[in-house]
Amino acid sequence: MSESKFLKTVAGQRFATPPIWLMRQAGRYLPEYRAVRATTSSFLEFCYTPDKAVEVTLQPIRRYGFDAAIIFSDILVVPDALGQRTWFEQGEGPKLEALTDPADFGKLSRGRLPEKLAPVYEAIRLTRAALPKETALLGFAGAPFTLACYMIEGGSSKDFAKVKTWAYSHPESFGLLIDLLVDAVVDHLSAQVDAGVDAVQLFDSWAGVLPEEQLFSWSLQPMVRIAHALKARHPKIPVIAFPRAVGPAALMYRRPDAFDVLSIDTSLGAHWASRELQPQICLQGNLDPIMLVAGGPALEREATRILDKLGHGSFVFNLGHGVVPQTPPDNVARLVEIVRNWKPSAA
Amino acid sequence: MSESKFLKTVAGQRFATPPIWLMRQAGRYLPEYRAVRATTSSFLEFCYTPDKAVEVTLQPIRRYGFDAAIIFSDILVVPDALGQRTWFEQGEGPKLEALTDPADFGKLSRGRLPEKLAPVYEAIRLTRAALPKETALLGFAGAPFTLACYMIEGGSSKDFAKVKTWAYSHPESFGLLIDLLVDAVVDHLSAQVDAGVDAVQLFDSWAGVLPEEQLFSWSLQPMVRIAHALKARHPKIPVIAFPRAVGPAALMYRRPDAFDVLSIDTSLGAHWASRELQPQICLQGNLDPIMLVAGGPALEREATRILDKLGHGSFVFNLGHGVVPQTPPDNVARLVEIVRNWKPSAA
Repeated sequence: MSESKFLKTVAGQRFATPPIWLMRQAGRYLPEYRAVRATTSSFLEFCYTPDKAVEVTLQPIRRYGFDAAIIFSDILVVPDALGQRTWFEQGEGPKLEALTDPADFGKLSRGRLPEKLAPVYEAIRLTRAALPKETALLGFAGAPFTLACYMIEGGSSKDFAKVKTWAYSHPESFGLLIDLLVDAVVDHLSAQVDAGVDAVQLFDSWAGVLPEEQLFSWSLQPMVRIAHALKARHPKIPVIAFPRAVGPAALMYRRPDAFDVLSIDTSLGAHWASRELQPQICLQGNLDPIMLVAGGPALEREATRILDKLGHGSFVFNLGHGVVPQTPPDNVARLVEIVRNWKPSAA
Repeated sequence: MSESKFLKTVAGQRFATPPIWLMRQAGRYLPEYRAVRATTSSFLEFCYTPDKAVEVTLQPIRRYGFDAAIIFSDILVVPDALGQRTWFEQGEGPKLEALTDPADFGKLSRGRLPEKLAPVYEAIRLTRAALPKETALLGFAGAPFTLACYMIEGGSSKDFAKVKTWAYSHPESFGLLIDLLVDAVVDHLSAQVDAGVDAVQLFDSWAGVLPEEQLFSWSLQPMVRIAHALKARHPKIPVIAFPRAVGPAALMYRRPDAFDVLSIDTSLGAHWASRELQPQICLQGNLDPIMLVAGGPALEREATRILDKLGHGSFVFNLGHGVVPQTPPDNVARLVEIVRNWKPSAA
């Protein structure tokens, strides 16, 4: 643990260049990933097969030597393990048998998690054993609001009208679902820590669809409760919060009592973030994943711009969102080179 | 003109309660809209039929007495008029024959605009004549980057990889397209002013997908150029800028030399906006459209919260995005009541 540049950075130590890992670094842009993925038709079954999850988690580490690996899994294993029917359709993304009424909550049970998610924890144990000591291993979970979005919309959505109407008009029953998800996520993250992850990231991918007061109630507060409960069980575990697309409301997430790192998406300008957020919390981000598709001088210029703005403070280099499938793998190698060869200017 | 509460507010005058209009106030949530819409199968043909465009523009004014009407049209009439094949498929949104190469720009010609868009200008003339004097009439256009998104992606997109890769890797040729669109939008807005609109709004709906440096080049700068060119022809015309989902980069759009009003989406907290933006520019926004679906106490509470934060300054009440089709029309009536009955607290 003390050998990890990523963990030392999160703990406040400074290096000549920041550590780097990428959201969705294990994925379809890698031919070796597609080869393993092709051996299982169901995506969830793929996630629940430890040797395959281990292999695809390790692939980008072998190729690029990132400072952190993130266990290959999906945020929707939680609703699936709670008992909600969840599946992935080719080219259409996730589908869930939507919750339409508080009575549906009765079908969900946290008791099923340890058994159903055992393959995830097994994959973590095997990955930790196979990883170099200096590579941190991250666990993760979807934040309660984002999970509730999928669970109530029955998949992704254009306007999130169902989940938001429920949250706005029936906050009591929506709060019961959020409470259940807070507990389930704490259980899931805690079991990941027990299995060997060195830090965890909470993805609130859809937080940005909420206005500020609702954001406080349904995104920030549940994430803080999760971080507190997790740290009560595992006092030193670093927690990364990623409330995507929340704009200036990112200011609310500067909560050192709960979060060790704040992951920022591409729409939060590096300049603004360096001034308003970084003095109070370690940042992670925020290169546009499409810069990795473009490559060439555009990638070099933009990665350097972000390093010049954020690399002088507490910072983990990452993207603002996940690697996209059409990314040329060579551009990822080039990015790692740019970050590792960056020379801080005398700013 | 001097009788319009909307225009007076934009010019700096203050009233007991702010003026109100709603983006997409003419639309599918209204049964009288659906009745007129059902008489034409093609959406663009519907936009190009003056008596129908006039009728649906006036419907929400009759029903709710909004302080402003916005001419019923679509931002994609510009690529259509430039000569790019554009059509709407039922339930799938807009489709365009995508531009794939700078050579495709040769097919686009501004010369076609006056004739092709004559029905829009005719609809404006007829609407202005039919509207009460106190109701402002707004014209609008898509901002160049948002139009380029549709023109290069061939419709909407999940990741905007094509348009962004083009902009990042080939800024010179992308800049030529943006220049052409700046000129076309100036022509289109100028003709709308000649036909009788009292103010115009520039929709940069996809601005939020750009990182800050690219945002400056491809969203802010073209919008400023449009505003300057338009004001050179029509010195007093108010310009509303709506760069959607740009987060704290909204700070860049405080440009009183170019914009009279900055329209803010739901993710820009009213509290932050009142402190950081409103001292320098009149704001418009920012109620979550889904609050209009929820209705009831949630709508009342949230509308009042926004009024309490922004109603003491220069402000036009609106949504953060367009009215959604499943909105109960009675909730819109209730919102107008809430705004018009708001009592400023002694803040």
